Amino acid sequence: MNAIDGGITTPLGYRASGVHCGIKKEKLDLAVLYSESPARVSIAYTRNNVRAAPIEIMMRRDPEVLQAFVVNSGNANALTNSRGIEDSHTMISHTARELGIDERLVGIASTGVIGRYLPMEKVIAGIPEAVKFLGKGPQYDSAAASAIMTTDTIRKEAACQVTIGDGTVVTIGAMAKGSGMISPAMRTLHATTLSFVTTDAVLGHRADRRWQRALDRSLNMINVDGDQSTNDISVLMANGAAGGQPVDDDPAFWEGVEYVLKILARLIVIDGEGATKLIEVVVDGAASESDAKLAAKAVVSSNLVKAAIFGGDPNFGRILAAIGNSGCEFDLDKTRLMISSNGTNTSLFENGVPLVWSDSKVESIARKIMEQKKIAIKLDLGVGEFSAEAWGCDLSFDYVKINAQYTT
Amino acid sequence: MNAIDGGITTPLGYRASGVHCGIKKEKLDLAVLYSESPARVSIAYTRNNVRAAPIEIMMRRDPEVLQAFVVNSGNANALTNSRGIEDSHTMISHTARELGIDERLVGIASTGVIGRYLPMEKVIAGIPEAVKFLGKGPQYDSAAASAIMTTDTIRKEAACQVTIGDGTVVTIGAMAKGSGMISPAMRTLHATTLSFVTTDAVLGHRADRRWQRALDRSLNMINVDGDQSTNDISVLMANGAAGGQPVDDDPAFWEGVEYVLKILARLIVIDGEGATKLIEVVVDGAASESDAKLAAKAVVSSNLVKAAIFGGDPNFGRILAAIGNSGCEFDLDKTRLMISSNGTNTSLFENGVPLVWSDSKVESIARKIMEQKKIAIKLDLGVGEFSAEAWGCDLSFDYVKINAQYTT
Repeated sequence: MNAIDGGITTPLGYRASGVHCGIKKEKLDLAVLYSESPARVSIAYTRNNVRAAPIEIMMRRDPEVLQAFVVNSGNANALTNSRGIEDSHTMISHTARELGIDERLVGIASTGVIGRYLPMEKVIAGIPEAVKFLGKGPQYDSAAASAIMTTDTIRKEAACQVTIGDGTVVTIGAMAKGSGMISPAMRTLHATTLSFVTTDAVLGHRADRRWQRALDRSLNMINVDGDQSTNDISVLMANGAAGGQPVDDDPAFWEGVEYVLKILARLIVIDGEGATKLIEVVVDGAASESDAKLAAKAVVSSNLVKAAIFGGDPNFGRILAAIGNSGCEFDLDKTRLMISSNGTNTSLFENGVPLVWSDSKVESIARKIMEQKKIAIKLDLGVGEFSAEAWGCDLSFDYVKINAQYTT
Repeated sequence: MNAIDGGITTPLGYRASGVHCGIKKEKLDLAVLYSESPARVSIAYTRNNVRAAPIEIMMRRDPEVLQAFVVNSGNANALTNSRGIEDSHTMISHTARELGIDERLVGIASTGVIGRYLPMEKVIAGIPEAVKFLGKGPQYDSAAASAIMTTDTIRKEAACQVTIGDGTVVTIGAMAKGSGMISPAMRTLHATTLSFVTTDAVLGHRADRRWQRALDRSLNMINVDGDQSTNDISVLMANGAAGGQPVDDDPAFWEGVEYVLKILARLIVIDGEGATKLIEVVVDGAASESDAKLAAKAVVSSNLVKAAIFGGDPNFGRILAAIGNSGCEFDLDKTRLMISSNGTNTSLFENGVPLVWSDSKVESIARKIMEQKKIAIKLDLGVGEFSAEAWGCDLSFDYVKINAQYTT
């Protein structure tokens, strides 16, 4: 697997664009993603039962093959009743007409404020422009990745190349948005934020199970604030332009997909609303993979842990209390909790014994580690052989500030 | 049911005290609660699998009858292994000796920082003093209620009198602590914070089911921050000193118990860490009582809703997104969302139509309501006849500040 610089149009046969149509005051707010030939897709959706209009439409259509996506930011088109559904259909039909393809080959997604109708005149005027500016390469990747952003402050892009079983080199590109309302659940086919992965590999069948597994080890293991959006969608598009044998069961291919998804996952939590620190949690010694995930996810999801990390406080009790709340199996007498940053590490709890408050040297190392921008937390639950990773950010004054005044 | 001024010693036959033994720097940190005769108890515990030593002991003993409780604040005696268990046993035996009663009649609870050993010399010196100062009346109620506080800024006390079926007047008193790490779950016999309810009524049998039901409609319907403590315990003590027939199935008695628990619930969220506003949610039109509870609890538990309310932002989409995440049944086309404060009210969403952004008059009324200190949110899910209430507080800069530096 080779990490490469790139984005959503890096694989063969994809083009993208991002334009300003006027939903937002100044920033880019309308993106089109286009494949030169129809691509096999796997799509995961939010599990929130309040579904935005585009989600409602996509779930009903449940497409096997798509050739394009139209995506707007600044307005979620959620809680907008039948008028919202019509507006999404209008976006799809205008995009299809401009691209000269069948409406059934155009997918749709929206993100932004909930409960406002789309300014459709502006959107309709923007679609031909977005189609006209379709292109391939870094500036087009950037434009598309920027046009799907809301409170994001950095673009989220990733790409890699992998050599599959028959020797063919295939490319994987990706983009995502998301910095708040982020707490994916872990059921079949549900999504986190808006995320798109393109590839020029050949997929023989719809790869829902594999796609979900890759999401469950990456985007579904992050937490910003415990709220799951009405608009989440995660899309995998495979147009086969690179040729070679189908990658449905090719381990190298799925390793590449997981790689770009983990890059996106880290970028999302680094850019979490108000985030000042990245928290990486590794859980080992769990009785099962699902237990390991439960435990890792519980630590990055605890408000108290997140606030303690913001304050640089090595309050290990909150980490273990989060584990206790998670429902996972553990043996406290064999549990070990370590923190590390920049090569320095220290144990806070071992074999049932708290180490940090009783030893001032441990406490001073722990406080030093907690001051860093990237904190790694390593937990051994002492009951088995399974592991999982999760990523989160701290809970800061700015998270509150950003969300206290979002619509104004 | 008559609300009366009072606290934990208002019912006949109870005494209490609160002293400073030195776990905290200056404030009261050790309380004893004593009944002149053994009392029938029902006790609910935290569902966190990391259990503090006193919780471990109490759950193992599973007592039917108790005569006293010893409670310390400032140190949770959690994550303290076998040494913590020994320390709790020592507290129990010293309290029993001072009171001249059997050890098996003494209950224990602790609250405070996790992962530190108790300063046992100080605690052992404090117990005789706490027993010596036992008394009845407002100043003893206050001392005990103060001595169980941690980050609390106000005492939580309540009392009432009810006339039961045979005409006997019985009294119910209560105290609680809690302002952070508060998010009770809803399974059988689990607790929220430390809370104690005393009564001089006669209980014929252990009233676990009724006690749980009262907790599920009060303390279990509040949320401060989504974390459940390692130390939660909710205790009902009935010493029968008022005589009369057993109240096991007396509706007036349980209405009184629910009344004092709801007072405590409101006091806890008003005093929520950093809270500036009280949020009261009423859900109607639900398909079942558990659905109504799910929905009401989801609204008071959403960080995004809490931050919006802190900022005075009538962001109704977040409230409905929380409902969508809760798993409850609803019909968006029949759902109605109203907010009110001080007699002013307005609909934000009705029959699938958002009202607030499209009508500047509605928006200005909504913003005015959101500026108040107490915000009532009323939701009709449009699918049935069931209702529930929940209480929460906003998410403020001060919540982050308090929790970023708790141990320092």
